[in-house]
Amino acid sequence: MTLPQDIQSSAEDYMDSQTHSNRPISSILIIIAMQTEALPLVEKFQLSEDHNSVFPKEVPWVRYHGVYKDLQINLIWPGKDSALGVDSVGTISASLVTYASIQALQPDLIINAGTAGGFKAKGASIGDVFLVSECAFHDRRIPIPVFDLYGVGLKQTLKTPNLLAGLDLKVGKLSTGDSLDMSMQDEASIIANDATVKDMEGAAVAYVADMFKVPAIFVKAVTDIVDGEKPTAEEFLQNLATVSAALDEAVTQVIHFISGKCIHEL
Amino acid sequence: MTLPQDIQSSAEDYMDSQTHSNRPISSILIIIAMQTEALPLVEKFQLSEDHNSVFPKEVPWVRYHGVYKDLQINLIWPGKDSALGVDSVGTISASLVTYASIQALQPDLIINAGTAGGFKAKGASIGDVFLVSECAFHDRRIPIPVFDLYGVGLKQTLKTPNLLAGLDLKVGKLSTGDSLDMSMQDEASIIANDATVKDMEGAAVAYVADMFKVPAIFVKAVTDIVDGEKPTAEEFLQNLATVSAALDEAVTQVIHFISGKCIHEL
Repeated sequence: MTLPQDIQSSAEDYMDSQTHSNRPISSILIIIAMQTEALPLVEKFQLSEDHNSVFPKEVPWVRYHGVYKDLQINLIWPGKDSALGVDSVGTISASLVTYASIQALQPDLIINAGTAGGFKAKGASIGDVFLVSECAFHDRRIPIPVFDLYGVGLKQTLKTPNLLAGLDLKVGKLSTGDSLDMSMQDEASIIANDATVKDMEGAAVAYVADMFKVPAIFVKAVTDIVDGEKPTAEEFLQNLATVSAALDEAVTQVIHFISGKCIHEL
Repeated sequence: MTLPQDIQSSAEDYMDSQTHSNRPISSILIIIAMQTEALPLVEKFQLSEDHNSVFPKEVPWVRYHGVYKDLQINLIWPGKDSALGVDSVGTISASLVTYASIQALQPDLIINAGTAGGFKAKGASIGDVFLVSECAFHDRRIPIPVFDLYGVGLKQTLKTPNLLAGLDLKVGKLSTGDSLDMSMQDEASIIANDATVKDMEGAAVAYVADMFKVPAIFVKAVTDIVDGEKPTAEEFLQNLATVSAALDEAVTQVIHFISGKCIHEL
């Protein structure tokens, strides 16, 4: 029997939620690619840096951890590239830290938070914070049947109707690629993905989370308008600090909302 | 003191080689993205599939292992995507299996083998097998100072002058990206990377290998001419089986050559 796709997805969501229905969420894993985005949250939740890392000594990944009410919080920042000293952004670091963190910390829920580009044609403005409904890649073009779908790598995020109703967040689809700019081919794929926001990590986190069936949500704040007038890099750098504050406020609200609830109550 | 870059690299190579100078290579890790490329080697070296995987049960990664003379051989194929059933190609799977395999198997040397596109303008022909001198990415454009270099992610491979002299392989630079096709922007980056061959995994394997200072070599066989007349996907599929045979022959020669030698003798 083949179910229509929307029914099938709902069925999967239901099964996923059932897995966790009997107990409140106790451990959350927050993955944030840039230090500027991460540090205000570290401060707000008074998280401590882990000096006896759960990760191998060779990696630059940094774990901050602490307790908020009944929640164990682990915030992982992939750290600075050891050769170049810049944040280890992008899909490779994101997938590696997601993998290693799931193995080491066995979280009940993953929150990938970060800044993103937004499309004004799809209703995004600077400073908007989006809760992502699905993730896909826009820079993995493999024009061979089925491999093409693998490249796009569409993943549904955890459905959180109550969280959405409770918080003042927008909803949109996310498209991920390893470039900050956007080529013509990227643009065509982003349109095909029907994306409102564009980042450099989300779909990679979703890929690994899905592999281990760990529910994941994605909170993305808009630093730059991709289909606007200003060059992306300039606008991104200009707005990074202020939009990071909006992002952290949203993530804080999400954590408050999560506390004491089960996955299926989100 | 700042050394000129070439001297610095030589010094690093020297130190790397010294780390391993006292004993012959005993454990090699071969990473191959596609089953068609992997199976002939599995047969040739009579490797067994590992049914009590060293990897988490949720991942599709497959380990084949065996002994050839004094060498422990582990061949890892990232397996079929669990939802779509195609080989888990590309940089994310490649980086994940490299990471997990280094942790689980602690190899002395990594060999990433696979098919690749070649540039006839740089001297590549169908069926040529290249030993890669350096790896970089061509689809991670981040136009912010220093982040731009992080995106390119240039990594030197292990220098193997004796291996090169002993075997009939060409030498060239490798450029890696997650698309089988090539956009205008990819092409500009590939030219900037001075690449002769183009694949979908190499620079990701190099990134993780470098993180853990595991020496790595890259053996890439040309299935299609990127700057030629035929569409890449068509030419790739046409030549995959025969070129995989050439690739496996080359990897076999490399393994024979390695056996009984130390890293600095390669």
